Amino acid sequence: MSEQLADLRRRMAEISDLGSLGALLFWDQQTMMPPGGAPARAEAAATLARVFHARETSPDLGALLDALEPWAAEQDPDSDDARLVWWARRDYEKAVRVPEDLAAELTRAKALGQQAWIEARAAADFSLFRDALARQVDLRHRYIACFDGFEHPYDALLDDFEPGLTTAELRPLFAELRDALVPLVSAAGDVEQERNAGAFKGEFDVVTQKLAVLDVLGALGYDPDRWRLDPTLHPFASGIAPDDVRLTTRYDEHDFAVALYSALHEFGHGLYEAGSDRALWRTTLDDPVSLGVHESQSRLWENMVGRSRAFCAWLLPRLNATVPGAVAGLDTAGLYHAVNTVQPSLVRTEADETTYNLHIILRFELELALMDGSLGVDDLPAAWDEGMDRLLGVQVPGPVEGVLQDVHWSAGLMGYFPTYTLGNLIGAQLWDRLRDDLADVDAQIERGEFAPLREWLREHVHRHGRKFPPRELLRRITGEELRVDPFLRYLREKLADAGVLATAT
Amino acid sequence: MSEQLADLRRRMAEISDLGSLGALLFWDQQTMMPPGGAPARAEAAATLARVFHARETSPDLGALLDALEPWAAEQDPDSDDARLVWWARRDYEKAVRVPEDLAAELTRAKALGQQAWIEARAAADFSLFRDALARQVDLRHRYIACFDGFEHPYDALLDDFEPGLTTAELRPLFAELRDALVPLVSAAGDVEQERNAGAFKGEFDVVTQKLAVLDVLGALGYDPDRWRLDPTLHPFASGIAPDDVRLTTRYDEHDFAVALYSALHEFGHGLYEAGSDRALWRTTLDDPVSLGVHESQSRLWENMVGRSRAFCAWLLPRLNATVPGAVAGLDTAGLYHAVNTVQPSLVRTEADETTYNLHIILRFELELALMDGSLGVDDLPAAWDEGMDRLLGVQVPGPVEGVLQDVHWSAGLMGYFPTYTLGNLIGAQLWDRLRDDLADVDAQIERGEFAPLREWLREHVHRHGRKFPPRELLRRITGEELRVDPFLRYLREKLADAGVLATAT
Repeated sequence: MSEQLADLRRRMAEISDLGSLGALLFWDQQTMMPPGGAPARAEAAATLARVFHARETSPDLGALLDALEPWAAEQDPDSDDARLVWWARRDYEKAVRVPEDLAAELTRAKALGQQAWIEARAAADFSLFRDALARQVDLRHRYIACFDGFEHPYDALLDDFEPGLTTAELRPLFAELRDALVPLVSAAGDVEQERNAGAFKGEFDVVTQKLAVLDVLGALGYDPDRWRLDPTLHPFASGIAPDDVRLTTRYDEHDFAVALYSALHEFGHGLYEAGSDRALWRTTLDDPVSLGVHESQSRLWENMVGRSRAFCAWLLPRLNATVPGAVAGLDTAGLYHAVNTVQPSLVRTEADETTYNLHIILRFELELALMDGSLGVDDLPAAWDEGMDRLLGVQVPGPVEGVLQDVHWSAGLMGYFPTYTLGNLIGAQLWDRLRDDLADVDAQIERGEFAPLREWLREHVHRHGRKFPPRELLRRITGEELRVDPFLRYLREKLADAGVLATAT
Repeated sequence: MSEQLADLRRRMAEISDLGSLGALLFWDQQTMMPPGGAPARAEAAATLARVFHARETSPDLGALLDALEPWAAEQDPDSDDARLVWWARRDYEKAVRVPEDLAAELTRAKALGQQAWIEARAAADFSLFRDALARQVDLRHRYIACFDGFEHPYDALLDDFEPGLTTAELRPLFAELRDALVPLVSAAGDVEQERNAGAFKGEFDVVTQKLAVLDVLGALGYDPDRWRLDPTLHPFASGIAPDDVRLTTRYDEHDFAVALYSALHEFGHGLYEAGSDRALWRTTLDDPVSLGVHESQSRLWENMVGRSRAFCAWLLPRLNATVPGAVAGLDTAGLYHAVNTVQPSLVRTEADETTYNLHIILRFELELALMDGSLGVDDLPAAWDEGMDRLLGVQVPGPVEGVLQDVHWSAGLMGYFPTYTLGNLIGAQLWDRLRDDLADVDAQIERGEFAPLREWLREHVHRHGRKFPPRELLRRITGEELRVDPFLRYLREKLADAGVLATAT
């Protein structure tokens, strides 16, 4: 069996390498590529995708898995090898079920959909996007039809981003969250207030901002020998390899909070990408296990750490030295209050921590309705506007700040949005457990000692890579299933502690 | 036949895409990758190389070429399709002749050789590099043995970099050049003089230098929508795609000439990469045809344009505005004289235009002797030092400035060095022809009108990509075979005109 196992490991190593090439192509396109390179890049990426797909769906791989599975069944189920075989089978089965012509159509529709979306936004006219969206909905149905064994059609979409997550599980969780957040936002929110209560506003040149961000990230654990930080339009983090982590951020010359908090967010993603066990490197287990768990890491650093009282206390003198004027006149309590203020607003990417999940819940409700046919594409803009009023109490002035604000649907990404909120829920569950283990964590953060926190995350989350499916990982760490109340408790306590809510409700 | 031709074009498009990915990997590694990424990058590059090799050597491709060749023989021999079939056959035959285990050993020896070279340089001890070099010589012999039909073993090496070039052709050319240059350097050279007679020396920050370089390149034809310029240790240009050209340069904070002339050099390479006919894009004809022709383009911009009297006249006021102090106190004649001074020196990459080819001729002589067995690896350092004295009249103080100065041999690159000098020879032959066609070129350059020059090069050289083999391309443009005297005449006239030689000798 050792020869077949070596063959599988070799194949998975090559698939891992090809994935790394794909990540580099994306990173380069978003940060470095001159605009003229786009058409050739699309072709090169398509060729790489074909090579990747051919390796993933090779009949030899299927036969190899047939031969290895009886052996794997007798191994320690927690061993790397047993898990490698399990994930290889799962990836293989998902890949072979999608016919090549449908895969090609999905790729084409992505490019066309994004183009239509850009044009519709430029014209502030949903009707220009309508057909492309209808096509995406139709293609999702064709994609779903490739699979059986899913209870709800939407489960097939969720499973691509959050393996094993079901609509049946998600619906009551999101309903519970919605029913708690709507009154919380009503109580704590002030639609007139500026984001972060106007802290971080001023005129800050990009070089100053970048040095200040690197100063903060360096203290957190950013290693310049293994990491980069570059500007981009829509920030992301990319693990080209565990020792080659690329963060990106965006600099707003009038608001330092944009770069600071997006860098904290991407740092959380990057740390996950960097932290897998060396034994998993160059295997297909060497990846974050799901978008939800990935987002739990970014949200944990952005919000649970980054908007805590302890972090504000540590951050304040640092920023006064590196970005004079950004938080001038504030004390720790003032900064802590400012970064936790709540203001219902129109655009998801600009939402505060409290209102953010209501933006996601709206998208989840609309996606489900689009997919089960209870909502037609033509009725989507009205449903969007109605939902924003119902959930956040805001009136949408037009499609650019409304139904056309996100790129995701244009690219066929449905079932993806829920993982943003899952990240908040999982993050809070992990945060509870972490605080049980690290009783001193607030004092450590206030002293700028981030190693224990980083190590806890590495030990419990990062090092496993993709070895354990997300629900199993959560159970192993917390003993729990997905829950809403840890997040709500965390949020209410913080809003009360920061003086944003009069009392903890 | 149209179906088979479409199949060939599809295969060549994918090979072209994979080549583009390889170029991006290299560019990224040299400019962007954090150092920690190196081991994973080596694996990813090796996987890509295997994918590339598998496509190149696919038996289906061989069968397809068998089927297409009778058809191609009846097409216009100058048609793209006929040439595509011809080059595909050539590439295929070269690729399939190297057994996979030898190819793997060549790759491994490259990494090991470079490591040994780095250590030997750090210790200034050739003996630490000796075994790795002997291994490279041995592997070259095994590589050569894969091929028949070459008159001289060294021809097999040359052919990889300059298709069709033979040792029999090169030897008398280089002998003629050597016999002319040695006395010319004696007459014009001054070993005590600084490079560029000390012009460009001072203290110049990198930002100022970069803006000044971009100002010059912008006037020459650098298009920021299709090009980039980044710093690196050893400058190079990479055509990721014709509309995605990446130049690199190096900034010496004490000598602006380093960045300026390396940028002019790489601009010449970049223009070639950017200039192929659109009909050739995403084919295997969409590449510069040889390293020699490639170098003719870089040398033409760096030296024939960049060190001309007309260019100096155009450049001087520009630099006085963008890099105050760099050429302070010089008039056009002074700058023209300074950038054409001759000083025999130890290190190839720092050599002036006149002495440069003697560095190459030494390497050519030594490579031939290593390959035909008349020189043993142990005797190489002494032979190097003797050659430097004989050709340039300089005494080598130690191996770092001597036999260990270049990375090429450590990576197994033998037969590569001659293309640097070929570039100078071809450049001069093209320059003669270009000046016949563009009688007004000096005045145009002095006015900063570079479009006619750029267009001539595109029309006669760049647009053909790899369509015509290098000798054929040269004949088509100039009606000539490779010659030495155009270069010597150009050089002597310039040295006399610039006052570096008392009279044109």
